[in-house]
Amino acid sequence: MEEKMNSGLVTSSRKKLTIVDTDVHHGYRAQSDLYPYLTKFNAERFAEWGFGGLSTHLYTSSGGLHGQRVDFDAGEAGDGLGTIGDAHYCSTRLLDANGIDLAVLTGGIAGAASALPDVDYGSALCRAFNDHSMEHWIAKDPRFRLNLDINSQDPLGAAAEIDRLGSHPAVCGVMFSCGAPKPFGQRFYHPIYEACARHGLAVTMHFGSEGEGVNPPPSAAGFPSYYIESRQLRPPAYAVHLASFIFEGVFEKFPTLKVAMVESGFAWVAPLIWKMDLDWKGLRRHTPWVKRLPSEYLVDHFRFGTQPLDEPADPEAIKHIINWIGGSRTLMFASDFPHWDADDPMMTLSDQPEDLRRRIFAENAIETYKLSLPAISQAA
Amino acid sequence: MEEKMNSGLVTSSRKKLTIVDTDVHHGYRAQSDLYPYLTKFNAERFAEWGFGGLSTHLYTSSGGLHGQRVDFDAGEAGDGLGTIGDAHYCSTRLLDANGIDLAVLTGGIAGAASALPDVDYGSALCRAFNDHSMEHWIAKDPRFRLNLDINSQDPLGAAAEIDRLGSHPAVCGVMFSCGAPKPFGQRFYHPIYEACARHGLAVTMHFGSEGEGVNPPPSAAGFPSYYIESRQLRPPAYAVHLASFIFEGVFEKFPTLKVAMVESGFAWVAPLIWKMDLDWKGLRRHTPWVKRLPSEYLVDHFRFGTQPLDEPADPEAIKHIINWIGGSRTLMFASDFPHWDADDPMMTLSDQPEDLRRRIFAENAIETYKLSLPAISQAA
Repeated sequence: MEEKMNSGLVTSSRKKLTIVDTDVHHGYRAQSDLYPYLTKFNAERFAEWGFGGLSTHLYTSSGGLHGQRVDFDAGEAGDGLGTIGDAHYCSTRLLDANGIDLAVLTGGIAGAASALPDVDYGSALCRAFNDHSMEHWIAKDPRFRLNLDINSQDPLGAAAEIDRLGSHPAVCGVMFSCGAPKPFGQRFYHPIYEACARHGLAVTMHFGSEGEGVNPPPSAAGFPSYYIESRQLRPPAYAVHLASFIFEGVFEKFPTLKVAMVESGFAWVAPLIWKMDLDWKGLRRHTPWVKRLPSEYLVDHFRFGTQPLDEPADPEAIKHIINWIGGSRTLMFASDFPHWDADDPMMTLSDQPEDLRRRIFAENAIETYKLSLPAISQAA
Repeated sequence: MEEKMNSGLVTSSRKKLTIVDTDVHHGYRAQSDLYPYLTKFNAERFAEWGFGGLSTHLYTSSGGLHGQRVDFDAGEAGDGLGTIGDAHYCSTRLLDANGIDLAVLTGGIAGAASALPDVDYGSALCRAFNDHSMEHWIAKDPRFRLNLDINSQDPLGAAAEIDRLGSHPAVCGVMFSCGAPKPFGQRFYHPIYEACARHGLAVTMHFGSEGEGVNPPPSAAGFPSYYIESRQLRPPAYAVHLASFIFEGVFEKFPTLKVAMVESGFAWVAPLIWKMDLDWKGLRRHTPWVKRLPSEYLVDHFRFGTQPLDEPADPEAIKHIINWIGGSRTLMFASDFPHWDADDPMMTLSDQPEDLRRRIFAENAIETYKLSLPAISQAA
């Protein structure tokens, strides 16, 4: 793998599919990397106070080494836990090494920035992170695509940021972190979706800020003790927003909007579909703006990253789940690099039919994020 | 159905199975019914202030008529929403009419009482409710079994209440409401499990108090807008406690403890099992007191009410789910009478094999709650 070039053209015999990786945690090397993109006041504030203690990882054990793959070079780590500090490292060690054609970048600071009490400060940090990403990532490799960091708790500020950068050809979506004072279907957030619609951007959602800053605790029973328990809270952290988007009627108001959930896994979606559909049949008079079965909105509007891939004892189980959730339309490959539990594209759903694998490894992401492959890759 | 006697002996041709109903919402007719069981001070407080505004149903729309079956006689309703005020009505309209041999009573005030800031007041209300239940329900029909109301936030007070009544032959468990400041596996609660172990009682858990009183909001994103959304938050409200019991090592400390979750449904359990097992394989060094696969603890210690029964589009799906969650050991029939979405025992899992139906309709509940059938019913 070492001799591969950072060229976008991969000729390894392992390359069988076009691969779009929809969850790559990019970052910056040091806090000072963001100072050039902040006002003097905010740069001083960031140097002195950082994120106000947020993103300091309440659950202080994780897997791997400091939450990252043990083969991940710590010298390449970003300033935030679980991020890659350097684009070149990502290009060679993730993209070249695994024959990945496009990487949708999901790193960043949206979670911490959106949990700060001062929304203007949070939005300023997002702008700085986006400017850094454009200069130090997007400009470095034609295979990178960017989810803009936005402050979900400053919808008008977020919309302004989307209008500032959202039409750049490498920008494909905006990042939301699941922790929030209110579910994302509510009207408070609609200026963000209006801006996404103007620029044809998807919403990408990632867990991470639950129980932080201005956000409520991570569960209806507060804070569990251990990291392994916090992982069990991830599916519900997505599910509350999924139901909110549907039952608030967001997709009737914004019919082109797509919502991607990454580092989510997907087995939990099947029972949620069944429950939402059954409940809608009995209760739809309460929300008459919800015109269709929840499962229909789901298949048309939601996408799920494959990682972390479940491993049920029954080998047929994953096939059933994929079928029940319309996986040929709803699933997108995600590696979650460089996290300790990242999935290898060669080992992900390798026993599934080729046409399904094409949908999951590339076509669904290309449609959701309106991606075009780099010219050299298309020719390959 | 009208001519049937309240005898415990049902001769209807519909009677094919012994049926234990593990979720029957009993109650009292009027707040004043509890005054005789309270001190003068607490009776006056209850008359003047009630539950301090709790249990007033934040999600103000529900299904049916005021949340209850439209064929439920409003004149028989209890003082709290969704409860039966009168034992005789329950005996005739639920038990006789449906050939139910035993009803495990799950009504009560544990949710509101456990969400009050003053834990002594909450515990006093639980004692009063239990005394009322013994006199006005348990004494009225040999087919009733009782989950004691306890204040989960007053573990020593709860243990005293369990010691007071827990050895009565009709008492089979204690009620927990899912909303809580801390997950139920944590050490704070262990005096309750010690008391349950002393008396051979199960823990029965029911959603209801999430986001009320001293409890945190119902999700990591706060409060969704609509009742239909609040229903999607129910499985996670149970799941956080399920994971807490396992990863805190509760079943190593209390190896006889059983935890029943009612009005929970059960399809959500399958993906939770997969995720817990996979995560434990990667992270078990963090919690070395967890000796076995989470799925093994689950099958040995957790039970799930069947209601509300999911209705997936794929008719095979429920069979797969039952298989994946060890349903022949983990499922117990529950009607949820008199709620609007109650399940009819004759229509519940009627396409499943007879031996599985025997487990689900009676044997699992009999083992979990150490039940004995009334003599007259055993003879039938």
